[in-house]
Amino acid sequence: MLFHDKFQLRIPGPTPIPPQVQMALTQPMIGHRSTTASTLIETCSEGLKHIFGTQESPLILTSSGTAALEAAAINALMPGDEAIVIVTGAFGDRFAKILKRYQIKVHRLEIPWGHACDPHQIQTFLEAHPQASAVFMTYCETSTGVLNPISLLARTIRQQSDALIIVDAVSCLGAVPSLVDQWGIDIMVSGSQKALMLPPGLAFVTVSQRAWPIIEQNPTPRFYLDLHAYRKQLENQTTPYTPALNLLFGLEAALTQIETEGLPQVFTRHQTLKRMTRAGLEAIGFELMTSERDASPTVTSVSGHKQAIHTEQLRSLLKEMHVHVAGGQQHMKGKIFRIGHMGYCDGFDILTTLAAIEMALTKMGITIELGSSIRTAQEVWIHA
Amino acid sequence: MLFHDKFQLRIPGPTPIPPQVQMALTQPMIGHRSTTASTLIETCSEGLKHIFGTQESPLILTSSGTAALEAAAINALMPGDEAIVIVTGAFGDRFAKILKRYQIKVHRLEIPWGHACDPHQIQTFLEAHPQASAVFMTYCETSTGVLNPISLLARTIRQQSDALIIVDAVSCLGAVPSLVDQWGIDIMVSGSQKALMLPPGLAFVTVSQRAWPIIEQNPTPRFYLDLHAYRKQLENQTTPYTPALNLLFGLEAALTQIETEGLPQVFTRHQTLKRMTRAGLEAIGFELMTSERDASPTVTSVSGHKQAIHTEQLRSLLKEMHVHVAGGQQHMKGKIFRIGHMGYCDGFDILTTLAAIEMALTKMGITIELGSSIRTAQEVWIHA
Repeated sequence: MLFHDKFQLRIPGPTPIPPQVQMALTQPMIGHRSTTASTLIETCSEGLKHIFGTQESPLILTSSGTAALEAAAINALMPGDEAIVIVTGAFGDRFAKILKRYQIKVHRLEIPWGHACDPHQIQTFLEAHPQASAVFMTYCETSTGVLNPISLLARTIRQQSDALIIVDAVSCLGAVPSLVDQWGIDIMVSGSQKALMLPPGLAFVTVSQRAWPIIEQNPTPRFYLDLHAYRKQLENQTTPYTPALNLLFGLEAALTQIETEGLPQVFTRHQTLKRMTRAGLEAIGFELMTSERDASPTVTSVSGHKQAIHTEQLRSLLKEMHVHVAGGQQHMKGKIFRIGHMGYCDGFDILTTLAAIEMALTKMGITIELGSSIRTAQEVWIHA
Repeated sequence: MLFHDKFQLRIPGPTPIPPQVQMALTQPMIGHRSTTASTLIETCSEGLKHIFGTQESPLILTSSGTAALEAAAINALMPGDEAIVIVTGAFGDRFAKILKRYQIKVHRLEIPWGHACDPHQIQTFLEAHPQASAVFMTYCETSTGVLNPISLLARTIRQQSDALIIVDAVSCLGAVPSLVDQWGIDIMVSGSQKALMLPPGLAFVTVSQRAWPIIEQNPTPRFYLDLHAYRKQLENQTTPYTPALNLLFGLEAALTQIETEGLPQVFTRHQTLKRMTRAGLEAIGFELMTSERDASPTVTSVSGHKQAIHTEQLRSLLKEMHVHVAGGQQHMKGKIFRIGHMGYCDGFDILTTLAAIEMALTKMGITIELGSSIRTAQEVWIHA
């Protein structure tokens, strides 16, 4: 009943690629200093402005998202500086690790995994660490499916501090609202392989007017990750080093897709995908890791089942049905599973995933009514 | 007489992509921690061993080539160290710039542009700078079309010094022999977008057994470019951060192409492309920037014409015929032009390029016999 190489990629990134984007990847190669390349880079940066919600031109790096996190850290801070990192999961932890590697003094605001950071928490923490030159936070924490209320957090921080506000938006940008300028975010980082529906290999960085002088005066040595070089070259509609041109063609196509659907519609779709997933899973006895309020529209983490089940056994049965969901990271390994529902994903993809999960549970000897989670999700969809 | 969007990309990288590689880029996205991804990474690293000529598994970075040059520099050296850089053009200069940025003391062995470094030159220079912990050199200097005799240079260095030998092979690996282990090269760096027939976005680094302890003890802070992390994860058949998976599918296809043709045949083809290009250009009065001995099989630099011509006018006439050749870099801007003939390139591509150049010369009022450079190149080909 399965086609041998047909599968459902329902991990929280990389995510499936739409056919138009796939085809765009095959455009004939061009010179990276040609006018075609300049137009392409300009178009992509302009399109990204809309997604990030900024008047500043987003910088485009050829790298994984992690390189852009590092770029944010080493351009904004220097050894000996103090930084606050709001750690809500594995990617907040990665920010802290990068900073520590560069001898930056890190104050970790630890939030229990599965919960978002509350503005009161950062307020108190900032009072205890008034010397912090920057606050790092994660918009969507991929490891738990938490969406932090970054606009509220940013407002709270700005009321009491001049610290730079630096946000990792890798696993949600393009699926949730972002108003970088209005919210006062100084640096926001994202990647290509999540809600932007591209293969991995590109990362994006916005920098506020406020942050540039700090970056330009920062003596920390860096070359490939020197954001100033990207800014300078972007003014000439180019990049300092040969960019991943075929991914830029893909980005252009992905931005067109998003524009065609309409950004508000994209956000609504992701909200509905989240609600369908959550309602469907709860209907068949699953316990979710995050509250409705704290949950991201891009990824849902499942912490358990009313009848204690072995998460990895479930994942492996799903894999036999060619449905790929992710496990937990760090101390959550083997304890949770995560379903990605961002980017090129619609309601039917959720119904398919729920169908597979129902069948897997049945194979595991858990008594559920087949079709019941699907029905619940359909009801959410039909009333959305 | 021209199809509106058909063009000849004859710059020294990025280079044209073969259809099989283009199609491989459109493979459906997969999880980066899946067994499919592991197999892919393993296959690519194994295939690259053969191209580099090493028993050590080449590391795969998602980045431009420059990031890999930087990785070589900052993993091998620390601030205060001394390094020799053999500067034969713009990319040797880039190596020096990266090192300087990291407070490494750079001794530049300046070779006039258009010439290769002679073993005697490095011997004398090393005697003057015995404290150098590393010697950086460029295999093919893209800016001049020079191929440095790195096996001879490496042998000379090793006879008198323990300095690490670090080679930029971005614009020739896959088109010329490389025997990293046998030649005693400690770190060799290459990129995807030149002779390996892929879009830009991947870089490759080999590290010798000798270099690893130095890298591991090096305290220079680095995260994305920490080569040790790539080595550790490659042992688990993965990468530390999400790699550009579609480019890895492309790499797998490109390695198959190279294997099908046979590496010795690939090298011979590039030799013939070089000889056809040089002979054809000389037949219609052009002066070449490099001697036959010093010239790379991947790129030919043209320094002038018997009847003084305006290089940029020639380039612009070629562009009108949809034939893209590169100009000069740095102080060679406007003075030379460069023809790339590497990767997915055959004899007919050279004949086409020569045909366009003949027509451009004619339009410029230079008297030549149309077809004469083509005939000369055909003669080279037919006797190859």
